[in-house]
Amino acid sequence: MPTKIIALTTDFGLKDPYAAEMKAVILSISPKTRIVDITHKIEKFNIRMGAYTLVAACPYFPKGTIHVAVIDPGVGTKRKAILIQTRNSYFIGPDNGVLALVAKSQGIKHIYKIENPKFMLPRISNTFHGRDIFAPAAAYLANGISPSEFGPEMRKIVTPKFAKITKTKTTLTGEIIHIDSFGNIITNLREEDCEIMGMKNTVNLELKDTRLKLRLCKAYSEVKAQQPLAIIGSHNFLEISINQGNAAETFQTRVGDKVRLYYI
Amino acid sequence: MPTKIIALTTDFGLKDPYAAEMKAVILSISPKTRIVDITHKIEKFNIRMGAYTLVAACPYFPKGTIHVAVIDPGVGTKRKAILIQTRNSYFIGPDNGVLALVAKSQGIKHIYKIENPKFMLPRISNTFHGRDIFAPAAAYLANGISPSEFGPEMRKIVTPKFAKITKTKTTLTGEIIHIDSFGNIITNLREEDCEIMGMKNTVNLELKDTRLKLRLCKAYSEVKAQQPLAIIGSHNFLEISINQGNAAETFQTRVGDKVRLYYI
Amino acid sequence: MPTKIIALTTDFGLKDPYAAEMKAVILSISPKTRIVDITHKIEKFNIRMGAYTLVAACPYFPKGTIHVAVIDPGVGTKRKAILIQTRNSYFIGPDNGVLALVAKSQGIKHIYKIENPKFMLPRISNTFHGRDIFAPAAAYLANGISPSEFGPEMRKIVTPKFAKITKTKTTLTGEIIHIDSFGNIITNLREEDCEIMGMKNTVNLELKDTRLKLRLCKAYSEVKAQQPLAIIGSHNFLEISINQGNAAETFQTRVGDKVRLYYI
Repeated sequence: MPTKIIALTTDFGLKDPYAAEMKAVILSISPKTRIVDITHKIEKFNIRMGAYTLVAACPYFPKGTIHVAVIDPGVGTKRKAILIQTRNSYFIGPDNGVLALVAKSQGIKHIYKIENPKFMLPRISNTFHGRDIFAPAAAYLANGISPSEFGPEMRKIVTPKFAKITKTKTTLTGEIIHIDSFGNIITNLREEDCEIMGMKNTVNLELKDTRLKLRLCKAYSEVKAQQPLAIIGSHNFLEISINQGNAAETFQTRVGDKVRLYYI
Repeated sequence: MPTKIIALTTDFGLKDPYAAEMKAVILSISPKTRIVDITHKIEKFNIRMGAYTLVAACPYFPKGTIHVAVIDPGVGTKRKAILIQTRNSYFIGPDNGVLALVAKSQGIKHIYKIENPKFMLPRISNTFHGRDIFAPAAAYLANGISPSEFGPEMRKIVTPKFAKITKTKTTLTGEIIHIDSFGNIITNLREEDCEIMGMKNTVNLELKDTRLKLRLCKAYSEVKAQQPLAIIGSHNFLEISINQGNAAETFQTRVGDKVRLYYI
Repeated sequence: MPTKIIALTTDFGLKDPYAAEMKAVILSISPKTRIVDITHKIEKFNIRMGAYTLVAACPYFPKGTIHVAVIDPGVGTKRKAILIQTRNSYFIGPDNGVLALVAKSQGIKHIYKIENPKFMLPRISNTFHGRDIFAPAAAYLANGISPSEFGPEMRKIVTPKFAKITKTKTTLTGEIIHIDSFGNIITNLREEDCEIMGMKNTVNLELKDTRLKLRLCKAYSEVKAQQPLAIIGSHNFLEISINQGNAAETFQTRVGDKVRLYYI
């Protein structure tokens, strides 16, 4: 059996020992497993940012990777703990929408409710299921335990309402799903959406009541330093950027703001 | 011999290459060792925060883990470099109190002064013993070198004075030992302290001259969003939290502030 | 063949999934490789800081380590992708100067232009060559692909102009190459430069129009807390520090500021 990878996405930050406690639990149960941090710097309780991060990163991981995502404002409530098996990977975390987008994009095969105490820590806190439930589930799965042993199969998962795209005859309206640390404004509009709107070299859009006509570039440096541009980013989303500058600060935008494309 | 784990706790931050240099030294000496970061974001020179972090995280690591903690304001002075063997683990770092709490909680078996130059880098700087002394000691220990080969056995280590609990007939006074990145206020008072004070569903306490009567919850979400609560946290300490909010900011508290429980 | 190490240095930060995507690509191609983060917190586009970080960290890594450095403001332009083989290691990244200092310090044996699409991801974005070109190149190199298979040999690389030292009869002028998270001011002047200037116990220097006479210490604690000192730091550079304080804030200095030594 090849070495398994467990990839972690949380809002725990890096100052506290929480992410390390998850790793300690994983290595106690499954000493050979490789652990990769996707990020622990999801904004606190920001399920949308967690969902986007998984959609962006997961396609690059090897088949069979076990993803654990803990953005879990409802920890200790009746929200379920779930294990999703897709065509490529496994996803473990709370049933609050954080796993839904990426799992659907990969094709869901099975969903299980995690409730078998055999695969949890002996003592379950009410505030840290990442360590007490999700990390051990991932480690036992890496050890070869069958997904169906974790609990009963489920039919439906909570699906988030964000990141919908709406159409009129002349517009296509999406939203900002992420602002990266360079200040790039990442929308949920894709290359094909731009093509539908007749955009080849120029993007005609509205961002927070401001109309912008931006060159649709292949590289940031096609415009001068500090100039704005549009670009299909490295995850195939339409991005608004400033060459060597910070677009999100310049345009004072936030995640969730609408972005409207106008037919050219 | 199973793969050894070396776990790192420092105040080096993640911007500078210091933590990576420790890892490079470890892998040069002991290529198969697993390295886990507990955190490198201990506040600069904050021995108390380092000590708390180790107390919180270490119980979840496998038996035999080698912990290296470098919060070392006295680097280059006569403070000793020590290796503590407990019933579960090994602890390597400066003898300034950072290792004392966790080592005592596990039961100290032996303490050694690290002074054998065979297990240090050939050239010892006066400013970075994490790389030049502690990392190689951990790596040689992982390779099977006996603890007693690092130097002479010692009887006593520096024991920090913080985090004491004082009692009167009607009160129990502890202190804030940590504020996590969610703003949870973590005290050094434990579940049994609350029980002694007759607290079951309500906690009656004084925090910075403010009297609070808080519901003792099992989960954050037992109170409404932005409401305060008390909870026994995931490390069995009494915590003061705000559901989906930041308690430390709201109550303007800092590590070291007193927390006084009143008998109900 | 022993396990290979790939060490990563980028300006991607830790909030976004970019560094994790590089790791996912590496592990997909070369599952046994060890990955070590040097840092992902190089300041955005700061080639000088990337170059310094590599000079500081690389000497501690085992022979044969593959270093990938992605500080790449010119991504998507005609700047080349290169692989440098030195006497000790391999360096992969953009040909913009970030690799030049460290490669020269180790002795360059060969330089190759990376252009063989066999060793890239099938689809190359214009904004993220770290994931699409540099990470796969490192992984294939770890798998044993010969450096010469990545592309044609080159003679010259871009060499940065920063960090030069100039001399007069009575002065030696270098500059600040790094300010670490403790606030230590790290110059590009070395121990031998101080010796040439006749400095044994005292350093006579000018920092931003201020003349300072500082004790040349062996340890921070040779001066009282909050007092300034000079010290040969753990990477053999002259540093200006404040014991348990922040020298860069106190002296209001920045990377690139001149530091002039006066002959004693």
